[in-house]
Amino acid sequence: MKFTVYLAGEIHTSWREELIDKAQALDLPLEFVGPMTDHERSDNIGEAVMGTQPSSIAKDEAASQINNLRTELLMKKSDLVIALFGEKYKQWNTAMDASAAISLQKPLILIRPENLHHPLKELSNKANVTVETVNQALKVLTYVFE
Amino acid sequence: MKFTVYLAGEIHTSWREELIDKAQALDLPLEFVGPMTDHERSDNIGEAVMGTQPSSIAKDEAASQINNLRTELLMKKSDLVIALFGEKYKQWNTAMDASAAISLQKPLILIRPENLHHPLKELSNKANVTVETVNQALKVLTYVFE
Amino acid sequence: MKFTVYLAGEIHTSWREELIDKAQALDLPLEFVGPMTDHERSDNIGEAVMGTQPSSIAKDEAASQINNLRTELLMKKSDLVIALFGEKYKQWNTAMDASAAISLQKPLILIRPENLHHPLKELSNKANVTVETVNQALKVLTYVFE
Amino acid sequence: MKFTVYLAGEIHTSWREELIDKAQALDLPLEFVGPMTDHERSDNIGEAVMGTQPSSIAKDEAASQINNLRTELLMKKSDLVIALFGEKYKQWNTAMDASAAISLQKPLILIRPENLHHPLKELSNKANVTVETVNQALKVLTYVFE
Amino acid sequence: MKFTVYLAGEIHTSWREELIDKAQALDLPLEFVGPMTDHERSDNIGEAVMGTQPSSIAKDEAASQINNLRTELLMKKSDLVIALFGEKYKQWNTAMDASAAISLQKPLILIRPENLHHPLKELSNKANVTVETVNQALKVLTYVFE
Amino acid sequence: MKFTVYLAGEIHTSWREELIDKAQALDLPLEFVGPMTDHERSDNIGEAVMGTQPSSIAKDEAASQINNLRTELLMKKSDLVIALFGEKYKQWNTAMDASAAISLQKPLILIRPENLHHPLKELSNKANVTVETVNQALKVLTYVFE
Amino acid sequence: MKFTVYLAGEIHTSWREELIDKAQALDLPLEFVGPMTDHERSDNIGEAVMGTQPSSIAKDEAASQINNLRTELLMKKSDLVIALFGEKYKQWNTAMDASAAISLQKPLILIRPENLHHPLKELSNKANVTVETVNQALKVLTYVFE
Amino acid sequence: MKFTVYLAGEIHTSWREELIDKAQALDLPLEFVGPMTDHERSDNIGEAVMGTQPSSIAKDEAASQINNLRTELLMKKSDLVIALFGEKYKQWNTAMDASAAISLQKPLILIRPENLHHPLKELSNKANVTVETVNQALKVLTYVFE
Repeated sequence: MKFTVYLAGEIHTSWREELIDKAQALDLPLEFVGPMTDHERSDNIGEAVMGTQPSSIAKDEAASQINNLRTELLMKKSDLVIALFGEKYKQWNTAMDASAAISLQKPLILIRPENLHHPLKELSNKANVTVETVNQALKVLTYVFE
Repeated sequence: MKFTVYLAGEIHTSWREELIDKAQALDLPLEFVGPMTDHERSDNIGEAVMGTQPSSIAKDEAASQINNLRTELLMKKSDLVIALFGEKYKQWNTAMDASAAISLQKPLILIRPENLHHPLKELSNKANVTVETVNQALKVLTYVFE
Repeated sequence: MKFTVYLAGEIHTSWREELIDKAQALDLPLEFVGPMTDHERSDNIGEAVMGTQPSSIAKDEAASQINNLRTELLMKKSDLVIALFGEKYKQWNTAMDASAAISLQKPLILIRPENLHHPLKELSNKANVTVETVNQALKVLTYVFE
Repeated sequence: MKFTVYLAGEIHTSWREELIDKAQALDLPLEFVGPMTDHERSDNIGEAVMGTQPSSIAKDEAASQINNLRTELLMKKSDLVIALFGEKYKQWNTAMDASAAISLQKPLILIRPENLHHPLKELSNKANVTVETVNQALKVLTYVFE
Repeated sequence: MKFTVYLAGEIHTSWREELIDKAQALDLPLEFVGPMTDHERSDNIGEAVMGTQPSSIAKDEAASQINNLRTELLMKKSDLVIALFGEKYKQWNTAMDASAAISLQKPLILIRPENLHHPLKELSNKANVTVETVNQALKVLTYVFE
Repeated sequence: MKFTVYLAGEIHTSWREELIDKAQALDLPLEFVGPMTDHERSDNIGEAVMGTQPSSIAKDEAASQINNLRTELLMKKSDLVIALFGEKYKQWNTAMDASAAISLQKPLILIRPENLHHPLKELSNKANVTVETVNQALKVLTYVFE
Repeated sequence: MKFTVYLAGEIHTSWREELIDKAQALDLPLEFVGPMTDHERSDNIGEAVMGTQPSSIAKDEAASQINNLRTELLMKKSDLVIALFGEKYKQWNTAMDASAAISLQKPLILIRPENLHHPLKELSNKANVTVETVNQALKVLTYVFE
Repeated sequence: MKFTVYLAGEIHTSWREELIDKAQALDLPLEFVGPMTDHERSDNIGEAVMGTQPSSIAKDEAASQINNLRTELLMKKSDLVIALFGEKYKQWNTAMDASAAISLQKPLILIRPENLHHPLKELSNKANVTVETVNQALKVLTYVFE
């Protein structure tokens, strides 16, 4: 049995690479998917596909529909979602994706630093598992295969 | 035909009262529900029900499960969700509730100031309607009954 | 037992009024809802809510999101959908609404002139009942209460 | 990860071949399915299976049920739907299939020439992504695998 | 709390009247709905709505789509389905309706004479409750309100 | 807005009466439903409806199908489920009903004495809210209407 | 793309073998599943698993639960259902399985001799395709892969 | 065709090994999954992942969320659930998992000693098949492939 894991959340640190590398080192039968992690590419994909847009709002709208299609397509194929919140940025996409995972009844692991507990308490309560580090999430993944 | 509207989002301004007053002045057949808007009461409801908790994390956990039950119960009874983002705070609950509305296939009106367009572009793209003011949301509600 | 009926389809003739009048004359316990039938108002609702838009495409986009919210909200509250195709116009919205009704498992009555049988044959096959006139649709509604 | 893509829409140009060829040239892990594109075969399949029918309406009815079964079976197996509208014909099947994709929560890419924006504005608003050319749709597909 | 009960099954005896009369005598808060019980009317409804049809098969097809619309509409509004099998006739509609009730997760009471146990054993196993008489079904209904 | 609450769980103490009385004293707009609380009646309902059964297993089978129909019918009409575990008995029905509530996405309040925390830890984790007393559950209900 | 086809219906003729042989001769990428076609084995499976039962009703009950589990398990894995009605027997299981397929939104091909049109008219109207012979069903299957 | 079977229930005897060994000896195309069967590991997994917890309740809470994620993930991938009740322990998790399987519409085989019939009568009535021994469950599995 093999699982597909969608890695939602911030794209400014290399937490995905860290998690994927360690999972491979442990030979866990997991396939990982996720959003575009090149921030520029993600912001510009609308214009890359549809050409220059008349305003920054139109540019954003063009990009967001393609990013949303990507997320919806990949999350539907996933068995599990891991969402990581960092210290910076608004990260409303992360909250949106985590909540979508819950509503789609995909098991959800939430990773967030302890000091974000208060603003994330309702989301944490709805997640299946809340941990503080990538390593802890990895231990949960490992446990499933024991 | 009468609709129930869930008012998700920030609880530090009186936008709900404004919207409800105007809807009543227009005699729109709408019933409004929403989260606890007394911030202290919301944060303390866990201890109010279950007694003093051993830590602030346990206090948050106790509160969040009751707030989530309230939201889930009321949103399920609603026909439409309006979610308002303000300039301040992390507002992850708002993003979570807006995303839950989308996944539950409840029509969603997003209210956000124009300058939040970029960080909310994916959520905006998934919402049915995005507007900038409470008055604009009210116009949308009015249109449904014309 | 009372039913709500969504009347999808062309807005250039008075078929809705005809159907509603006759249903009332027969005292059928039915409530009717439907799209905005004032074509100008429907096309301009985006600008009426959000102000003048930078292009005709942006104007259309603004209007379409509000019209879609209205349709989704009202169709979800309906027990039955009647969709009428006329001789003119592209009527892709009618096809879209009829198909949405089928997918939402709302019983669907399709009204179309016989000469449109060929281009509508797949939609007709998916509808519960296909008839040619408003009077025939009315007879079907009457039968449900016999 | 491999996706199956249903190609809905007009069958009078070779847009499917163009898209499939380019996707293969790019080695995208995609499998394409779609409706019968031989128009005569599609119109005559009812009589081909069940023998000569008593009228053109009966012939159409016989064909439509088999075409609908084909579409339903293949669309259910698909991860993504692309629907193309051309300049000609009523194309109600395309609207029906696109709307079914939305209701089945299959991500939908709509391809239509810019001059069809107005009559397709509501469908476009409901699609995940709207583009104007096959090449643009291909860029969206490519982006998912980056 | 009031329930709506759909009474599926044979239309050649007066079991519906018997059940409804007794439920009313007991003041049970129940509303009953069901198929057209005038057999001629049911068989002729297609021609009554759409005019004389070219063949008996076309007449049957016209009637069946209207009868199916009626059943679908009324069963969806019901909280409970009671299906009665008698000694005579093929009663495939009864089996179809009973099975639809199970799949729609509507609680199902099956009434059948003991000697039909063998051919109905799989359907009986899927029903919530199987009894032999209308009076026994009535006792089950009464129990729900104790 | 009025809610229906299903009261699952043990039937050997008067916790339901206590909860209902207090909710009424507080004028909460709640309607309460639940299983047959007369244990003898519940165990004998199968024979009461279908006559004496050949064995105690057949008697149990006859009773269980009627009790399950009652629970399914009432729980589907409920907005919220409260499940109470006591110190005694196996209470597998309570676990079954609580789990059904979760799967049906009905918000669930679990009431259990603290010393049952360990054997109920997984169910508690899945419940929306876990409390120890009827009074605490009542406080949660009250909060929803504040 | 490969499909799994559930073959529901009568078990007294060799129509399944005929269909499977021809499909294999045509190299159609189809896998076929279905009910136990050894009638004795099907009727006795309850006692074969659970030992001699106290009555013929208990024997039937024991068998039916195992046959239903088999059908449910295999039909859920299927992409398409073909149900064949013959001239003899009550065939309520066939009607039950065909109706379950419709409710599970599995495309359904109904095979029945023309003279059964009248009693099967409602089921036929709900099926995707109705044909009269195994060969016609095979032609429909073939068409899907053209 | 290959099935995945989730083995829910008590973890203090070697019934899983027995079942798996026999299924392999019979070459049944089955893959088996289930909960952590090392009781200590299951109780301690929360602290193993998240570190020492402040109380036994917090330790239980940490463990239960991980065990629930494991169950949810594996049960969703399963085609069939077998739940075994033994003579000892409260086994509320078994009842919870069995009920979840029913609600998720996964076919369920219940194994329980005959003397537990009375307290399990409602759950048994909802299960697809109830047997008394692992060997009987194996015979049911075998029958599916005959």
